[in-house]
Amino acid sequence: MKLWAKNTDVQKEVEQFTVGNDRELDMYLAPFDVLGSIAHITMLESIGLLSKDDLSTLKKELVKIYGEIEKGEFKIEDGIEDVHSQVEYLLTQRIGEAGKKIHSGRSRNDQVLVDIKQYLRHELKQIVFLAKQLFNTFQKLSEEHKKKLLPGYTHLQIAMPSSFGLWFGAYAESLVDDMELLLAAYKIANKNPLGSAAGYGSSFPLNRTMTTKLLGFGALNYNVVYAQMTRGKSEKVTSMALASVAATLSKFAYDVCLYISQNFGFISFPDHLTTGSSIMPHKKNPDVFELIRAKCNKLQGLPNDLTLLTNNLPSGYFRDMQITKALIIPAFEELNDCLQICNYMLQHITCKEGITRDEKYKYIFSVEVVNNQVLEGVPFREAYKNVGLAIEDGNFEAPETINHTHEGSIGNLCTEEVKAEMEKIIASFDFERIEKAVKDLLK
Amino acid sequence: MKLWAKNTDVQKEVEQFTVGNDRELDMYLAPFDVLGSIAHITMLESIGLLSKDDLSTLKKELVKIYGEIEKGEFKIEDGIEDVHSQVEYLLTQRIGEAGKKIHSGRSRNDQVLVDIKQYLRHELKQIVFLAKQLFNTFQKLSEEHKKKLLPGYTHLQIAMPSSFGLWFGAYAESLVDDMELLLAAYKIANKNPLGSAAGYGSSFPLNRTMTTKLLGFGALNYNVVYAQMTRGKSEKVTSMALASVAATLSKFAYDVCLYISQNFGFISFPDHLTTGSSIMPHKKNPDVFELIRAKCNKLQGLPNDLTLLTNNLPSGYFRDMQITKALIIPAFEELNDCLQICNYMLQHITCKEGITRDEKYKYIFSVEVVNNQVLEGVPFREAYKNVGLAIEDGNFEAPETINHTHEGSIGNLCTEEVKAEMEKIIASFDFERIEKAVKDLLK
Amino acid sequence: MKLWAKNTDVQKEVEQFTVGNDRELDMYLAPFDVLGSIAHITMLESIGLLSKDDLSTLKKELVKIYGEIEKGEFKIEDGIEDVHSQVEYLLTQRIGEAGKKIHSGRSRNDQVLVDIKQYLRHELKQIVFLAKQLFNTFQKLSEEHKKKLLPGYTHLQIAMPSSFGLWFGAYAESLVDDMELLLAAYKIANKNPLGSAAGYGSSFPLNRTMTTKLLGFGALNYNVVYAQMTRGKSEKVTSMALASVAATLSKFAYDVCLYISQNFGFISFPDHLTTGSSIMPHKKNPDVFELIRAKCNKLQGLPNDLTLLTNNLPSGYFRDMQITKALIIPAFEELNDCLQICNYMLQHITCKEGITRDEKYKYIFSVEVVNNQVLEGVPFREAYKNVGLAIEDGNFEAPETINHTHEGSIGNLCTEEVKAEMEKIIASFDFERIEKAVKDLLK
Amino acid sequence: MKLWAKNTDVQKEVEQFTVGNDRELDMYLAPFDVLGSIAHITMLESIGLLSKDDLSTLKKELVKIYGEIEKGEFKIEDGIEDVHSQVEYLLTQRIGEAGKKIHSGRSRNDQVLVDIKQYLRHELKQIVFLAKQLFNTFQKLSEEHKKKLLPGYTHLQIAMPSSFGLWFGAYAESLVDDMELLLAAYKIANKNPLGSAAGYGSSFPLNRTMTTKLLGFGALNYNVVYAQMTRGKSEKVTSMALASVAATLSKFAYDVCLYISQNFGFISFPDHLTTGSSIMPHKKNPDVFELIRAKCNKLQGLPNDLTLLTNNLPSGYFRDMQITKALIIPAFEELNDCLQICNYMLQHITCKEGITRDEKYKYIFSVEVVNNQVLEGVPFREAYKNVGLAIEDGNFEAPETINHTHEGSIGNLCTEEVKAEMEKIIASFDFERIEKAVKDLLK
Repeated sequence: MKLWAKNTDVQKEVEQFTVGNDRELDMYLAPFDVLGSIAHITMLESIGLLSKDDLSTLKKELVKIYGEIEKGEFKIEDGIEDVHSQVEYLLTQRIGEAGKKIHSGRSRNDQVLVDIKQYLRHELKQIVFLAKQLFNTFQKLSEEHKKKLLPGYTHLQIAMPSSFGLWFGAYAESLVDDMELLLAAYKIANKNPLGSAAGYGSSFPLNRTMTTKLLGFGALNYNVVYAQMTRGKSEKVTSMALASVAATLSKFAYDVCLYISQNFGFISFPDHLTTGSSIMPHKKNPDVFELIRAKCNKLQGLPNDLTLLTNNLPSGYFRDMQITKALIIPAFEELNDCLQICNYMLQHITCKEGITRDEKYKYIFSVEVVNNQVLEGVPFREAYKNVGLAIEDGNFEAPETINHTHEGSIGNLCTEEVKAEMEKIIASFDFERIEKAVKDLLK
Repeated sequence: MKLWAKNTDVQKEVEQFTVGNDRELDMYLAPFDVLGSIAHITMLESIGLLSKDDLSTLKKELVKIYGEIEKGEFKIEDGIEDVHSQVEYLLTQRIGEAGKKIHSGRSRNDQVLVDIKQYLRHELKQIVFLAKQLFNTFQKLSEEHKKKLLPGYTHLQIAMPSSFGLWFGAYAESLVDDMELLLAAYKIANKNPLGSAAGYGSSFPLNRTMTTKLLGFGALNYNVVYAQMTRGKSEKVTSMALASVAATLSKFAYDVCLYISQNFGFISFPDHLTTGSSIMPHKKNPDVFELIRAKCNKLQGLPNDLTLLTNNLPSGYFRDMQITKALIIPAFEELNDCLQICNYMLQHITCKEGITRDEKYKYIFSVEVVNNQVLEGVPFREAYKNVGLAIEDGNFEAPETINHTHEGSIGNLCTEEVKAEMEKIIASFDFERIEKAVKDLLK
Repeated sequence: MKLWAKNTDVQKEVEQFTVGNDRELDMYLAPFDVLGSIAHITMLESIGLLSKDDLSTLKKELVKIYGEIEKGEFKIEDGIEDVHSQVEYLLTQRIGEAGKKIHSGRSRNDQVLVDIKQYLRHELKQIVFLAKQLFNTFQKLSEEHKKKLLPGYTHLQIAMPSSFGLWFGAYAESLVDDMELLLAAYKIANKNPLGSAAGYGSSFPLNRTMTTKLLGFGALNYNVVYAQMTRGKSEKVTSMALASVAATLSKFAYDVCLYISQNFGFISFPDHLTTGSSIMPHKKNPDVFELIRAKCNKLQGLPNDLTLLTNNLPSGYFRDMQITKALIIPAFEELNDCLQICNYMLQHITCKEGITRDEKYKYIFSVEVVNNQVLEGVPFREAYKNVGLAIEDGNFEAPETINHTHEGSIGNLCTEEVKAEMEKIIASFDFERIEKAVKDLLK
Repeated sequence: MKLWAKNTDVQKEVEQFTVGNDRELDMYLAPFDVLGSIAHITMLESIGLLSKDDLSTLKKELVKIYGEIEKGEFKIEDGIEDVHSQVEYLLTQRIGEAGKKIHSGRSRNDQVLVDIKQYLRHELKQIVFLAKQLFNTFQKLSEEHKKKLLPGYTHLQIAMPSSFGLWFGAYAESLVDDMELLLAAYKIANKNPLGSAAGYGSSFPLNRTMTTKLLGFGALNYNVVYAQMTRGKSEKVTSMALASVAATLSKFAYDVCLYISQNFGFISFPDHLTTGSSIMPHKKNPDVFELIRAKCNKLQGLPNDLTLLTNNLPSGYFRDMQITKALIIPAFEELNDCLQICNYMLQHITCKEGITRDEKYKYIFSVEVVNNQVLEGVPFREAYKNVGLAIEDGNFEAPETINHTHEGSIGNLCTEEVKAEMEKIIASFDFERIEKAVKDLLK
C-alpha cells in the first residue's frame, strides 16, 4: 500500500486496508457458511418466514455450491468482500431475488460466528486424529525399544537409568493430557451461536434449538450477548489447546536435537532426512526437528497474541475480531504439518543399543545397588555407605540387569493403561453426530 | 543482596539466591506434603519396606503435624531449606531416626510433585466454588433486572436493544465455558506422580495404584518420565484455566467502568464503594473494578510466563521448576480476591431504569419495526423502505414494547438451561472423593 | 501437506516442510543479498583471494541482478532453495564457474545475517519516515484545534478541562519516545556480522573493517560468536521498537473509537470513511481504526513471539532461526500500512466545537474556579469551601475562559519544543551514510 | 481475604483489596517522593504560591525525612494509604497545617509519576553498573582463556573450532547491545512529568522547566496528557531493556548448564557452588545457573505482562496503573540478584584445557585444512576434494595450531574495541547530573 505515492482513488486503499487478506482466509469458512445457511433456511421455513418452494430452491442451490467448494471450484471473486457475499451473489445470479432471503433473521455477526464454530470443531477433529496417530507411533516405539537403556538426566547431569521405552512412552502420555485441553476447546467451540444476530438477538420467533440440532452442535450458546462474546474467546481457548500439543512436540524435538548431537549420540536418522557436509562427516543436522521446535514455539505464543487482540474490549462486536482469523487459521495448518512430519520422521528413527555400557554412565546404577541391598535386608544407611565406599575405592560395579517393576517404570510401561486413558477421552468427542448432521443437511 | 559490598561468607549469599522466598511459598504445600507422606508410608508398609510399628509411630506424628499446620502453628525454621526438610526435622526430633524412613523409595522430585498436584486440585476447587458463587449472582441479577432495557452496541456504536437481563446473563454463561477449562486443568492436575522418584522410577516394588487411591487421585501419571514432565505443565494448564476466568472478570470490569462513566450512566454503586471528590460531585471512580481488571489482565499473562519458564528444556528435572511456585501460588490468591470482591460489589449495584427512552437511543428500535411489519406480512424490502423513509422524514417512532422470544433473547433468557449446563460440569469434578480420601488418611 | 494420504516421494514433503514459505520471504532480502556479495568480493580481491578480473566480472553481473530486483524481474525459481542459491545460480549461468567464487570465506550463516541486518535497518528507516509524517500530522492538528476544549477523563470519569490541542499533541510526543526505541533498534541492527562465517570466524585473513565501511554499517559485530547470536536478537529488539510505535497507534485508535461513539460524539469522519446503515442513521462504524487497533495489538505480541522462538537455545546457529523471518517481515508491512492509513484518516477528521458547553461537563471547571480564587488571594481551603458550597447549592458557574499557561498545558502546547526533540533524535540516525554506501557499491 | 466468612466491616475488605501490598511497594518510592516535593515547593515559592518562610520550614522537614528514609527509620504507618500520605502526615504532625501546602498545583497523579520516573532512572543506573561489572568479568575471562579451544556447534552438531576467548567475549559484547536498550529506557524515563497534575495540567502558572532542572531530568514530558500516558509506558520500555539483559544472562546460563554436563565437560565450578550426591560422584548440579536462567526467563515475560496491563485503555489515568509497581519493582531486584550472582560464580569457573584433542572433535579442523591449502595456492575445489578424500580414507590429521586473524576471531578478539564501544554508550548516560541535582536539593 502506497497511499501517499499515488494519492488517487483513496477509498480503494481504505478498502484494501480493511479487507487485507481476509478473502483468502474466508475460503476456509466457505463449506461451513453454506451448511449454516442450509440450517438457517430450513428453520426459517419451519417458523413461516420462508415458503416451502423458496426453501427447496435455495437448498438445492446451496448444496450445489457446497459441491463446488469441495471440488475446489469455488472462489471469492474480485470486488466481492467476503465469503458470505460471494455465496449470496452466486445464489442471486442463479435463482434471482429469492437468493437474498437467506438473510432474514440473521446478521453478518452470527453468520461468521456459526462458520467459525464449525470450522474450529472441524479442525480440532483433524488435530485429534493426527495427535492420536502420533500417540500410536510413540507407543509402538516405546514397546519396540523398551529393553534399550538410556541414561536419565536431572539438571542435565547423568543421574539414573532410563530407557527408550520410558522416553517414547512419556510423550505418548503427554498427548493424553493435551487431549483434555482439546476436548475442553472442542466443547466450547461446539455450541451454536446462530440466532444471536448482531449480538442482541432478533424479534423474529427463531427456533435456535432446531438449528442447533441441524448443525449437530452439542449445545446452544444460549445468551445472545454471550454468543457474541465467544468470538475471539473460542479461538483463544482453541489456541491454548493447540499450544499444549505444540509444547509436547517442541519438547520432544528438543530432546531429539540433543540426543542426536555427537555429545550424546543416542539416536540417528537416515542421511536423506538430515543435512550434512562431506568434509564434516559426523555432522547430521536435524533440520526437521529444529523447525518442528521453532514452529511449535511460535504456536505457543498464539494464546497470548489472541489475548492481546481481544482483551480490554467491552462487550459487543468490534471489527477487531476479523484479525482473529489471521491468527488461528494458519496455526491449524502449521500444527497439522508438525504432527505429520514428526510422525513421518519417527518411522525412520534409529535407537542406539548399549548406550549405558559407556563408562561415563556407570554411576547411574549406584542407587539400584543400594536398593538391591536394602531389598536383601541391609539397612538403608548401611547399604548407602557400602556403595559410597565402593565408589570411592573404585570398586563400584554396575549390575548386569535392572529390575523396575512398579507402574510406569522401565520394566512395566503400562502401555495398555495409557492407551485406555487416551481412548476414553477420544470417545468423549462426538464427531459422529457432526458427520451425521452434515450428511443430513446436504441430503 | 549485596554480594560485593560485604564480600564475606559468600556461600550464604549463594544459598539466599537459590532459596529466595521459596520457604514462604512452601508453606502453601505443607498440608499436602504431610498427606503425601502418610500415603507413602502406608504403601511402604504394605510392600514390606516399613514395619507396622514404624508406620504407626510415623503416621501418628504426621497427623499431629497436619493438625499443627491447620492451626497455623507450623513454620519452616531458620536454616531449614524447605517444607519437606522441616517435616522430616520435626519427625526426627520427636521420634528419632525412624523419622527418616519416610524417604525410602521416594525422591525430593516426586515428593514436591505430589504436593503441587494436591495443591493445584485443592485451589482449583476454591476457584470453582467462587466462580459458581459469582455465577449465581450474575444469574440472580439477570432475572431481577430482566425488564430493564439497555442500548446494545456494535463497534461501540448504538445499535440494537439489549437488556440488563442479557448483560448479566452473558457473564454467567461465560463462566460456564470457563468451567470447562477448569475441569480440564483439574483432570490433568488430579493424577498421581508419586513413585516417579527422580523422574525415572525406582527399583523398589512400589505400589503406585495404592497411593493413587489413598490420595484420592483420579488416575496415575503412569510413565515416570512423563510424571516429571507434568511439573510446570500442570501449572501452565491450570494458569490457562485461571486466565480464562480472569478474562471473563476483566471484560465485565471493563463494561462496568464504561457503564458507570457519566457518558453512559447505566449503573452506579453506593458512594462508600467508589471514590470521589467533593468539588466534582458527579465523579465516582470505580477503583475496585479498575483493580479487578488490572489484576485479571496481569493473570492473563501467567500462561505465557510459565511457558517462557518451562519451554525449550529437554526432558528431566531442572531447578528452574522451583520458580513455577512463585508464579502460580500468588495467582490463585489474586483470582480468589477478584472473584470475591466482584461478587461483593454486585450485591450493591444499581441498574438505571428507562435508559432507552433517551432520544439518542431511539433508532435501536428501527430493526424491530421492520421485523414487526414483516411478521405482519409486509415484504422485507418494503418494510425496510418504510422505516428508512420514516427515519428520513423524522417520523420514526420507537415501539412501546419489544417482543423477543427465541432462546437466549431479551424475553427468554434461558436462565434455567444455563444453570443446568453449569451444574452438569460441576458434577464432573470429584471433590467428594478427595475429601473422603483426606479424611481417611488422617484417621 | 498430506504425507500419509499420498505416501510417495516423501523427501519432497520433508523438503516442503523445511522450506515452507521461506522463498517468498527471501524475496525481501534479495537486494541486500546482492549488496552483501558485492562488498564481500571487493574485500576478497583486496586480500588476494579473488583476481581483479574475477571481481570485475562478478561485480558487473551482481549490479545487473540488483537492477533486475529493483525492476521486479527477479524471482526465486522452482527447485531453488533460497535467495542466496538463486543469485549464485544466475551468476554461474551467466559467467560460469567463476560465479561460485563469491562464497570463499563466507558461510550461509553470515550471508543471511548480513542480509537481515541490512533489511532491518532499511525497514526501520521506512518506519521512521512514516512515524515522522504522522507526527507532523498530529502536531498540525494539535495547533489547528488548540482552542477547542474537551472534557478530560480520569477513571473514565469526567474530570478536568482538556483540549484537542492536548489530545493530538500527546500522540505526537508519544512518537518522540517511540523514536528512542527505533534508534536503539537501528543502532543494534546497523552492525556488520559479515565475516563471522558459520558463527566461529574463518582462517582466511578477511578484512571485516573494510566490508563494514563498504556496506555503510555503523560498526562491526566484532566477536564472531556474538555476531551469530544477533540472529533473532536483532529482530527481537526491532520488534520491541515496532511494538512501541504500535502501542501509540493502538491507544490513539482506541480513543478514536470511543470519541466517535454517540455517547461521546467528540469527533467524526466523512461517511465514505466509516460504515453505517440506512435504518440506523447515527451509526458510523470506525472500522479503519478498529483494524488499526487490532493489527497494532497483534504487533505488540511480536516481541514475545520472538522471545519464545529464540529463548533457551544455547549459543550457535540453529535452523529455528529461519522462522524469525516469518514473524518480522510481515510485521513491517503491517505497521507501514497502519501508519499510512492513520495518517490518511486524520486528513479527514472533524473535531466538534463547543463540547464542554454541555451541562454534564460543567464541573470540570470547578478546580479552575478554586485556583482562580487562590490566585486572587483567597486561602486555598476557603476557596475550596466556596466552590463546594456553590456546587451544593446549584449556583456553580463555569468560567467563560480558562487560562493554562505552563509548559505543555492547554494554553502553551510547546509544539516547537516537542518538534525540536523529535528532530534531534532523527538526526542521530545516519541514513545518508547508508545511501551513499549503497550508491558506491553499485557504481 | 475472606469476605464471606466474616461478612462484617466490609469496607475494610474493599480497602484491603484496593491497597493490597501497595504500601510495601511505595517504600521504594519514598526517597523520590521527598525529592519531588522539595523541587515542587521550591518552584511554588518562585511563582509566589508559597512564602519564603513556609518553603524554609517545609524543606528543612523534608530533608530530615529523607535522612530518616536513608537510615531505614521511615515507615508507612497502619491506616495510612500510601507514601505520599505518610510524608504529608509526618509534615503536618511536625509543623502543623503548613504541611499540607506541598499539594498546591499538584495532583496525586503527577506526584506518583515523578516518583516513578526518578525510581526508574535510579534503578536503571544500578543495572548499568552491575551489567558493566559483569561485562568486565566476561572480558577478563575471555582474555585469560583465549588460548583454550572449544568445539563450536551449529545445530548442536560439532562444527568448527571455537574458543573460551570467543565464548566469554560474545557475552561481553551482548551486553553492549543490551546497553543501547538500557539507554533508550533511561532517556524515556528521565523526563519530568511534574506539573501535569491529574493529566490535564493546572491553571496555576507553574514553572515546569524549573522543576526539571531541580530534579536533574534530561527533559520535560511537555504535553500533560502525554506525561500521564508515560505511566505504564515508561515501565514497559524499561522492562524491555531489562528483558534484553535477562536474555543475555539466560542464554549464558543455558550454555553453562550444557557445558557442565558430563556429556560436554567443558567447565566446572568448585563443589561448594554446585550440589551433588555422595553416591553419584560425578554429579554437579548447576543450581545457581538454572535459577539464573529461570529468573531471567520469567523477567522476559515482563514486557508482555505490562502490555496486557496497559493495553486497550483510552487516554487518561486509571487505577489499573497501580499494578505496574507490583510488576516492575520486584523485577529490578531479581535482575540485580542475577547479575551479581552470575558475576560471583564466574570468579570461580574452571575452563578445561585440551578439549578439542578428543577424537570426536577432530573434524572441526577440516575447513581449516582446506583453507590452509587454498592460502597456499591450491584451488578451492581441489583442496576441498583433498580433504574429503583424506577423511574418507581415515588419513585426516587435525592441524597443530589454528591461525584466525580477522577482527573478532579466535586469534584477534578485539577486546579493546568492544570495551571502547561499551564505554561510549555508558558515557551517554548523565548520571552525574542527577547526583548533583539530588545533592543540591538536599542542601
